[in-house]
Amino acid sequence: MIEPREVSERDLHGMVENFLRSGFTTDNPLITEAVRRMLAAGGKRLRPRITLLAVQAMGGAPSEQLALAAYMELIHVATLIHDDVVDGAQTRRGVNATAVDYGNRISVLAGDYLFAWIFKNVTANYPHPVPHILSATLAAICDGEVLQLHAMGNVDLSFESYVEIVEKKTATLFAASAECGAIMGGAKTSAAGVRVLREFGMQYGIAFQMLDDLLDMTSDQTALGKPVGNDLRERKVTIPLILARQNADEPFRRRLEAFFDAELDEREEQAEIAAVIADIGRVGGFERTRAAIRTYAERAKLALGGLKGGESIALEELAALANRLI
Amino acid sequence: MIEPREVSERDLHGMVENFLRSGFTTDNPLITEAVRRMLAAGGKRLRPRITLLAVQAMGGAPSEQLALAAYMELIHVATLIHDDVVDGAQTRRGVNATAVDYGNRISVLAGDYLFAWIFKNVTANYPHPVPHILSATLAAICDGEVLQLHAMGNVDLSFESYVEIVEKKTATLFAASAECGAIMGGAKTSAAGVRVLREFGMQYGIAFQMLDDLLDMTSDQTALGKPVGNDLRERKVTIPLILARQNADEPFRRRLEAFFDAELDEREEQAEIAAVIADIGRVGGFERTRAAIRTYAERAKLALGGLKGGESIALEELAALANRLI
Repeated sequence: MIEPREVSERDLHGMVENFLRSGFTTDNPLITEAVRRMLAAGGKRLRPRITLLAVQAMGGAPSEQLALAAYMELIHVATLIHDDVVDGAQTRRGVNATAVDYGNRISVLAGDYLFAWIFKNVTANYPHPVPHILSATLAAICDGEVLQLHAMGNVDLSFESYVEIVEKKTATLFAASAECGAIMGGAKTSAAGVRVLREFGMQYGIAFQMLDDLLDMTSDQTALGKPVGNDLRERKVTIPLILARQNADEPFRRRLEAFFDAELDEREEQAEIAAVIADIGRVGGFERTRAAIRTYAERAKLALGGLKGGESIALEELAALANRLI
Repeated sequence: MIEPREVSERDLHGMVENFLRSGFTTDNPLITEAVRRMLAAGGKRLRPRITLLAVQAMGGAPSEQLALAAYMELIHVATLIHDDVVDGAQTRRGVNATAVDYGNRISVLAGDYLFAWIFKNVTANYPHPVPHILSATLAAICDGEVLQLHAMGNVDLSFESYVEIVEKKTATLFAASAECGAIMGGAKTSAAGVRVLREFGMQYGIAFQMLDDLLDMTSDQTALGKPVGNDLRERKVTIPLILARQNADEPFRRRLEAFFDAELDEREEQAEIAAVIADIGRVGGFERTRAAIRTYAERAKLALGGLKGGESIALEELAALANRLI
């Protein structure tokens, strides 16, 4: 066994990557290939990192929890595979969406298989309540995604409804990543520590999604791995728009109303999306989004203060992750 | 608590129905409605019956395992909801498929939610290995469905490959229904009993799927709740066709080759499906399928002989279920 202090974060990242590359195997070559292709497309692996840092924060050895960390990424990947069916997405992480290369049929089944494979492993190898937390998390993610679908095209979506959706569809998996890491790191010694780390994950996850929403409007296609303004194209109402609407002048309101009501051809839509994004920026939607991200990232860091006696290097790195969102 | 002998099978069936009607609730009205609608469309509830009979066969009280029995039906329902997305099915159990009324997006998410909801409950309330068996079962079902998709249009599919697909996509859930019932009914007293009941479920499930395949060609739309010859329409190679091909004369071979190669319009296809079905009957495909069903149903009954000291009424009823397939 390798002691935690001897393993750098870069080593751990490499070990998680290695698990993702070789640890996922099935008897079914088509499923294995579809999932591995999605994993090979990259990703920041934030959920596994949070799991390993939570293990370490509770005094455990991160190198012993690589599989658990990898399962957090795999749950995320399984939801992405199904999302791309649900959203009809063309690209994901800069490569074709699974549904594009393999069709909706294989995508639905590969996602189901991956969920089942994760639960099969987790129920065999982890104590209660880890398997329960992961299944409850998946239920919350689906609930949040249905709420989001239901809210599409609703330009009046409130800040509170948005946060509820984001907690469920995004933040709950960050919360579970931290919670399960904390449990395996040393749950028996501190139930309060587990609660603190879960809370960190939840607040971090909300800030993370808000940044994702912001980048969808302010970044470029190469960095995003998908077209800019994709959320608006789907008539998904995200935080920059919600915060901009609170400040909107008459021309912006009229433009928004027209955009959400009209049937536009591709060229008109492209132009209108660019104009709506410009208006959101003009009335301060991006600034206010940055302020909201800061608020939730600060709450995440504040939560960490409740962890008395936590391993300080891990706590500092968790705080640094939150700072990176600002 | 009600003692097993005081509760008739009809009472138990009613209690399972009641659980399915009121036991499935979520915070998300759209998911609840989509799943309940699917449950209300009916079904023979064979999996829950097998679970409760397995509980009873091991000397347990079926009335204490209604939720477990219902989860077996719910796993089945969740796979049906996703199947209808995968297959593009129009109707299911005589009503519109979930995907038709709610769209593919909600169908994918409602199925995911249902899987997660089941695992959330099972991981909270049942001992190892029940949650593990159920997740391994779901993985096998998906594996089988991918194999089936891959085999579509392959008119040369072998009997052995067909049985492998059927074991995974259908029989494994019957096996798990019996196994989990046996575990909760009295696993500690007899590991051999658990193996016997699992084997019963597996053999029963193969016979069950073969009968389903037969009825797809020999029944009528009202009884099926979907069009006759649906498997052929999807170019799914099922047991009557596999067994008929072994006896096929030249005209039938030519017809089959043409059917699997040609692009047909709807009217031509309808006529060709009827002609292929007639040919399958003519060369003995239905007779040979009935013989195969009998073989597997007999194997299921034979397996029960290995359960020394099992509760005899339950064993008789399990045997009667197998007889009903013949």
